[in-house]
Amino acid sequence: MSLIGSEVLPFTASAFKAGEDFFEVTEENLKGQWSIVCFYPADFSFVCPTELEDLQKQYATLKDLGVEVFSVSTDTHFVHKAWHEHSTAVGSIEYTMIGDPSQTISRNFDVLNEASGLADRGTFLIDPDGVIQTVEINADGIGRDASTLINKVKAAQYVRQNPGEVCPAKWEEGSETLKPSLDIVGKI
Amino acid sequence: MSLIGSEVLPFTASAFKAGEDFFEVTEENLKGQWSIVCFYPADFSFVCPTELEDLQKQYATLKDLGVEVFSVSTDTHFVHKAWHEHSTAVGSIEYTMIGDPSQTISRNFDVLNEASGLADRGTFLIDPDGVIQTVEINADGIGRDASTLINKVKAAQYVRQNPGEVCPAKWEEGSETLKPSLDIVGKI
Amino acid sequence: MSLIGSEVLPFTASAFKAGEDFFEVTEENLKGQWSIVCFYPADFSFVCPTELEDLQKQYATLKDLGVEVFSVSTDTHFVHKAWHEHSTAVGSIEYTMIGDPSQTISRNFDVLNEASGLADRGTFLIDPDGVIQTVEINADGIGRDASTLINKVKAAQYVRQNPGEVCPAKWEEGSETLKPSLDIVGKI
Amino acid sequence: MSLIGSEVLPFTASAFKAGEDFFEVTEENLKGQWSIVCFYPADFSFVCPTELEDLQKQYATLKDLGVEVFSVSTDTHFVHKAWHEHSTAVGSIEYTMIGDPSQTISRNFDVLNEASGLADRGTFLIDPDGVIQTVEINADGIGRDASTLINKVKAAQYVRQNPGEVCPAKWEEGSETLKPSLDIVGKI
Amino acid sequence: MSLIGSEVLPFTASAFKAGEDFFEVTEENLKGQWSIVCFYPADFSFVCPTELEDLQKQYATLKDLGVEVFSVSTDTHFVHKAWHEHSTAVGSIEYTMIGDPSQTISRNFDVLNEASGLADRGTFLIDPDGVIQTVEINADGIGRDASTLINKVKAAQYVRQNPGEVCPAKWEEGSETLKPSLDIVGKI
Amino acid sequence: MSLIGSEVLPFTASAFKAGEDFFEVTEENLKGQWSIVCFYPADFSFVCPTELEDLQKQYATLKDLGVEVFSVSTDTHFVHKAWHEHSTAVGSIEYTMIGDPSQTISRNFDVLNEASGLADRGTFLIDPDGVIQTVEINADGIGRDASTLINKVKAAQYVRQNPGEVCPAKWEEGSETLKPSLDIVGKI
Amino acid sequence: MSLIGSEVLPFTASAFKAGEDFFEVTEENLKGQWSIVCFYPADFSFVCPTELEDLQKQYATLKDLGVEVFSVSTDTHFVHKAWHEHSTAVGSIEYTMIGDPSQTISRNFDVLNEASGLADRGTFLIDPDGVIQTVEINADGIGRDASTLINKVKAAQYVRQNPGEVCPAKWEEGSETLKPSLDIVGKI
Amino acid sequence: MSLIGSEVLPFTASAFKAGEDFFEVTEENLKGQWSIVCFYPADFSFVCPTELEDLQKQYATLKDLGVEVFSVSTDTHFVHKAWHEHSTAVGSIEYTMIGDPSQTISRNFDVLNEASGLADRGTFLIDPDGVIQTVEINADGIGRDASTLINKVKAAQYVRQNPGEVCPAKWEEGSETLKPSLDIVGKI
Amino acid sequence: MSLIGSEVLPFTASAFKAGEDFFEVTEENLKGQWSIVCFYPADFSFVCPTELEDLQKQYATLKDLGVEVFSVSTDTHFVHKAWHEHSTAVGSIEYTMIGDPSQTISRNFDVLNEASGLADRGTFLIDPDGVIQTVEINADGIGRDASTLINKVKAAQYVRQNPGEVCPAKWEEGSETLKPSLDIVGKI
Amino acid sequence: MSLIGSEVLPFTASAFKAGEDFFEVTEENLKGQWSIVCFYPADFSFVCPTELEDLQKQYATLKDLGVEVFSVSTDTHFVHKAWHEHSTAVGSIEYTMIGDPSQTISRNFDVLNEASGLADRGTFLIDPDGVIQTVEINADGIGRDASTLINKVKAAQYVRQNPGEVCPAKWEEGSETLKPSLDIVGKI
Repeated sequence: MSLIGSEVLPFTASAFKAGEDFFEVTEENLKGQWSIVCFYPADFSFVCPTELEDLQKQYATLKDLGVEVFSVSTDTHFVHKAWHEHSTAVGSIEYTMIGDPSQTISRNFDVLNEASGLADRGTFLIDPDGVIQTVEINADGIGRDASTLINKVKAAQYVRQNPGEVCPAKWEEGSETLKPSLDIVGKI
Repeated sequence: MSLIGSEVLPFTASAFKAGEDFFEVTEENLKGQWSIVCFYPADFSFVCPTELEDLQKQYATLKDLGVEVFSVSTDTHFVHKAWHEHSTAVGSIEYTMIGDPSQTISRNFDVLNEASGLADRGTFLIDPDGVIQTVEINADGIGRDASTLINKVKAAQYVRQNPGEVCPAKWEEGSETLKPSLDIVGKI
Repeated sequence: MSLIGSEVLPFTASAFKAGEDFFEVTEENLKGQWSIVCFYPADFSFVCPTELEDLQKQYATLKDLGVEVFSVSTDTHFVHKAWHEHSTAVGSIEYTMIGDPSQTISRNFDVLNEASGLADRGTFLIDPDGVIQTVEINADGIGRDASTLINKVKAAQYVRQNPGEVCPAKWEEGSETLKPSLDIVGKI
Repeated sequence: MSLIGSEVLPFTASAFKAGEDFFEVTEENLKGQWSIVCFYPADFSFVCPTELEDLQKQYATLKDLGVEVFSVSTDTHFVHKAWHEHSTAVGSIEYTMIGDPSQTISRNFDVLNEASGLADRGTFLIDPDGVIQTVEINADGIGRDASTLINKVKAAQYVRQNPGEVCPAKWEEGSETLKPSLDIVGKI
Repeated sequence: MSLIGSEVLPFTASAFKAGEDFFEVTEENLKGQWSIVCFYPADFSFVCPTELEDLQKQYATLKDLGVEVFSVSTDTHFVHKAWHEHSTAVGSIEYTMIGDPSQTISRNFDVLNEASGLADRGTFLIDPDGVIQTVEINADGIGRDASTLINKVKAAQYVRQNPGEVCPAKWEEGSETLKPSLDIVGKI
Repeated sequence: MSLIGSEVLPFTASAFKAGEDFFEVTEENLKGQWSIVCFYPADFSFVCPTELEDLQKQYATLKDLGVEVFSVSTDTHFVHKAWHEHSTAVGSIEYTMIGDPSQTISRNFDVLNEASGLADRGTFLIDPDGVIQTVEINADGIGRDASTLINKVKAAQYVRQNPGEVCPAKWEEGSETLKPSLDIVGKI
Repeated sequence: MSLIGSEVLPFTASAFKAGEDFFEVTEENLKGQWSIVCFYPADFSFVCPTELEDLQKQYATLKDLGVEVFSVSTDTHFVHKAWHEHSTAVGSIEYTMIGDPSQTISRNFDVLNEASGLADRGTFLIDPDGVIQTVEINADGIGRDASTLINKVKAAQYVRQNPGEVCPAKWEEGSETLKPSLDIVGKI
Repeated sequence: MSLIGSEVLPFTASAFKAGEDFFEVTEENLKGQWSIVCFYPADFSFVCPTELEDLQKQYATLKDLGVEVFSVSTDTHFVHKAWHEHSTAVGSIEYTMIGDPSQTISRNFDVLNEASGLADRGTFLIDPDGVIQTVEINADGIGRDASTLINKVKAAQYVRQNPGEVCPAKWEEGSETLKPSLDIVGKI
Repeated sequence: MSLIGSEVLPFTASAFKAGEDFFEVTEENLKGQWSIVCFYPADFSFVCPTELEDLQKQYATLKDLGVEVFSVSTDTHFVHKAWHEHSTAVGSIEYTMIGDPSQTISRNFDVLNEASGLADRGTFLIDPDGVIQTVEINADGIGRDASTLINKVKAAQYVRQNPGEVCPAKWEEGSETLKPSLDIVGKI
Repeated sequence: MSLIGSEVLPFTASAFKAGEDFFEVTEENLKGQWSIVCFYPADFSFVCPTELEDLQKQYATLKDLGVEVFSVSTDTHFVHKAWHEHSTAVGSIEYTMIGDPSQTISRNFDVLNEASGLADRGTFLIDPDGVIQTVEINADGIGRDASTLINKVKAAQYVRQNPGEVCPAKWEEGSETLKPSLDIVGKI
């Protein structure tokens, strides 16, 4: 059974955010607004900084949509801070970078690779109730494209605000949705 | 631990394909070429036909890339045939539609909702060795966009053909890749 | 131990009935009147529509006898609706068609084939207390004859209304019954 | 899971047959020809003799169809002999009456009522490979009608002899059967 | 540990008694007076009727001694009735014949042969508190002699009525008993 | 399940016999001829000596029938010797007196009272194969009558020597036996 | 861990004492005064009577010291009585002889030989609180010397009455004891 | 079950003996000659040195009888050496002093007090086969008297050299023994 | 997981201290002030006295720092006293020497060598809350240097008194400490 | 039981060393020469860099003594490389820095804090056979002093090269050692 439709499990972790001191984050911080949680294997490794920078480029748009962004690796918050300081790509990041050295969050989201102790490249969209709405995971070496998240967010928000309607494939904001009813069964 | 990097588990099932008689499919059919396996909850329901039709629209491109496509629901192959016959959207489908009433495949890919007996909306990209490379799952009501698959396929194929290089975020065919080495640690 | 004499186990399912919207059915709907529950393997398959049509032909008579009829397969209610729309034989059906994709009801009545995920061809007569009175199950390929149900219903109803009498073999309405007593032991 | 499609389990028992001495019967005697096994609760009880007599009336026809008949109760073979001697109805029986005081056969066919130590009224049709093809079980007080067995036997034999065809509902010898194929899906 | 000195375990069964309708018997019917419970393998078999007839010949004497008699086999009460009707020997029986098809009583008294489902030839003398005082069991083929029960009953009753005295070997009513005391230790 | 029909279990014990030194006895000594094993609670107690003396009076007759006799209590062989020396009744005993302080034999024959550590008053007849043929057990205070053993021995020996015949109730040497056959079922 | 320092475990047994009727003894009878419990293998055996007679010769002295004496074997109280009557040595015994046929007491004091069912030759000194103070056990064939008990009793009583003093090796009444203190550590 | 009659269990330990270097001792050193093993709680404590000195006084006599002596406490061999050097009483000891800090030997002889980690005051006599012949254990504060060991040794040696004879109570070298035989049962 | 940061487990033991009588020590005595617990294998052995003497030389300094010192071996307090008396090195010791013959404390601090029953050479620094702050353990044969403890104590005390500061490597009293803050991450 | 005297457990990990590419390290790399393994909680944290720099200052001396040095934290080798690049203190390090994100090595050496996922500050000295000779662990906030390692190494090497001698407390190269013998027991 996938995690889709399940509520995020509890955790406590230390995090870094540009311009703030280190602070504690729990699963409660993922609730109350829409959240994107973006796992990646390791600070100071190769694909990772480009993915995080790409996500940063969508950050303003996501904020406008009421979405908060959290990146997570099994590195410590100390390392996040150092990476932020020394990497041009990562240095631009404004969202919260969570340290998960105890591997609790990576286990909670089922993305911990036990052999390496690192997280798979998983992206999760979470609604304001803390319920997971979409999951996307790529093998190592295949970067993600953060821009595809925007439409997912809009579709998920539309469905939440309009109970009884569903967004068809390739749906974009403003295009038509479907209203499930006996009559359209087999009519599409 | 996610399914990323694991080999597809064994199954045997009956399938429908336009213009052919019913035939048997096993996990071996997912190997030897790139494969996309697309799960959806139910034939004759709402979001599903638009998603399957959207996938059909990418089918020629995917074929050119050497990718075979399989859709799976827990409906029988009889129902797939009937749906194909009676639905305009579904009637256009040329790829293989697998029936999974025994729920084996849905369990193998960790997308069976035990309470409803239906599959979550999961899309899997599988390499020619039968190893899962990408996963994407949406909650009910949120349609997928098949066009995003094209870039994932290209990135995965590039990484397979060029060991020692990785595709950064938002990578598109022809753009630069990264060659992991000691020197670029912390330099991106 | 057979299910004869046991009460139907709890379930919740979605159902289709011609001229009505989809609705929820539970084991409580099988009580309060006599019920026939007719399992079959799959919508859009071969023997099944002739059996369901045959049962429909007895529906008026069964209604007159105070018997409600429910068909069940592991297909969804969406598929039932589509089948009803597209099949001449099935299109005539007026009774309730229950969808059992979670396989709960088929398991409850001990007719789920685990390997195929489909139900055996079982017919159950249930009294107003929800207690199973008769069972009949045929292997695949052997159709049932719904007309034999009428006499079973009448015999079961007679026995319920006349405690202390039993219906001998080949009993038909109006013919004599037996009153068990010490005196007729060994006298028949 | 019902017993349909499963092979009869092993047993050893003593039996009585008119005009022969007591003899031993095993599950092997149910194979090599078609067999009907008819369970009933108790010798010298009420519904039972009428059912057994009714079955005897079909015995010649069943023999002509290559079907052997076995009745089974948890009484001993001694009691079967005595009942045969003293009951007019039972005295006419020519088929084999098996004694099952150890309750093994009744358990094998899932019809033993543990509380009473008696068998439910179950009738089983078994093919020459010892595989169960049809089951019918009635609650106490509701007699069976042996004549309905004739058509079941014919349908089961037809399906066995004509692989690839199925008998629709209400099928009788000589009437049409169905040949499952892709083309008739949804066409009936 | 033998059953001597233990109280009879609970059971519920149907019984036959000449001149009465079928009736229910429980372990309570074995209490309140002295009881003899006589197990035998099977109605309509060979040694059994002679033993039961022999017991009947002692029945008047036993009744005078305040002893009730119960015979038990794993046959049903229906069969007991039929046997009583058709056997000269058994037809004379006036005591209660209990049917034990559920094998509960035979198990309670440790005389069930699991392989055959029949009871061993055991005779039990039970006091008014339901406590087992004597046991006698013979292998198949060796008949019992009911007359030896009379002296056992008298000895058991004497001991119950005269606490502090014991009946020596071969004791008969009226002959001397022993009063256990320190003084006769080693003096007999 | 009673011990009737089961073979005696292994044991090793010390025994006393008048006119011989102490010697070892095992279950093998119970085989090769017919044996009677007579348990009693305690040497130097009350009912016991009269029973043992009574058994001695039948010893010559039993020897003539090829039956060896063994008495058993949980006392030691030392105590048996002392009792034999000091008791008039016991002093007459010529058969073997086995000491069972380890309680093994009493447990093997299911007559050990765990609370008191003493044996119940059980008498067992064992055939030359070591198989138990009859059991008789009395509560404390009720003496046995050894003369009833003679007929049991004769019946058991007759059945062993005449396979296919059975001894009816109250059978005595020379009187008729029964030959079980289909024809006499229900005729006695 | 030895039994030294542990309290005697509960038991109930029958006992014999010259000039009294049989009576019940429990572990409570071992408390309230000093007690010696003397186990031996078997009445009417060889070493045992000399040991018990030897203990009797110290009985008056032990009584003067406030010590009660109990002998125990797994023989019954009946046998104790008979032995007392017939043995010159044992006939002199005035203390209590406990019968332990249930082997409970022998087990409680860890001296039961499971293979033989007899007790080892163990002597236990028990203080008024029921706590075991000394143990002495000899293999079969090696007699004990009861006179050595007197000094043990005196030493144990002295220690009990003079908390803070200990009796050195070979201590006899009246000789010096030791007062443990820091100063004499290593000074003896 | 006491340790009487059981063989000593394996151990390896370091030991001290006056005039020798430290050396290893195993259970094999207890075999091949008679051995006395004397446990005591603690070096440098109170009763202990007087007991060990008392044992030393018997050492020459024991040696003459072919008995080797071993003392054991849970102290180390280092401490034994130091105690021997600093204590007048202990300084006289010529026998082997075993260190048992791993508590193995104390556990093997069932004298370890788990709470304190110290050994009870137990003395064991072991025959040349390593079989324990006598046990004596005193509570803390009650010293032993080594002279009583001499007679035990002589009796045990006599019994070993004269199979078939036993030493009665209070036996001393040269006095009469008993020859167990049927004739003296109950004659002592 | 090491014991660092865990609270000392409960124990009760006897101890020796020069000029005082023996007294009881528990884990509570390790709290309320800083404590050093120093394990060593055995009294009267080789490296040990030099280590304990070395620790004594730091005792005054440690006392001035508010640190209490406890040495522990699995020897008894009796042996500690004797060693103190007879060894020049050990005779100088003023701190508490705990006896641990029950091995409880050695187990609690994870330094018991099960095979030898002796403690490893472990030194523990414990804060006033009973929480272990530093551990140091050497293999047998490698002596410790107590003077290195002084700096550890000072560092631990400084950290406790100045929450928010940490002592860098080679820190000595008076030298600078570090104040962890976001700003110095990666700056050292 | 501490890890002292046990062999290092197997592991595989990635490591960084200045001037080399990333490379794999296993437990075999710790053998064949003396090794120091130094755990610390986290790269880019506070006490850690001073400790690692301090260790670097001893590196030349340790190399001369034939000792290889390995630092370990649960950070990745990527992070070690980055830290080496950006920290002045860490930048001087010439020894191997092992990444242990899978936490295997930290668990093997019993220093993983499960709650934080970080290693305790433990230093281990390992001999050429891979056997752990010394352990030292400090709580967070208390830095280690690498110079104290030099003497430990020398003592451990001396003991290895001179079997039969031990180094007393505060031993330094060239000073006297002790030769354990009976004669010096209690003489130091």
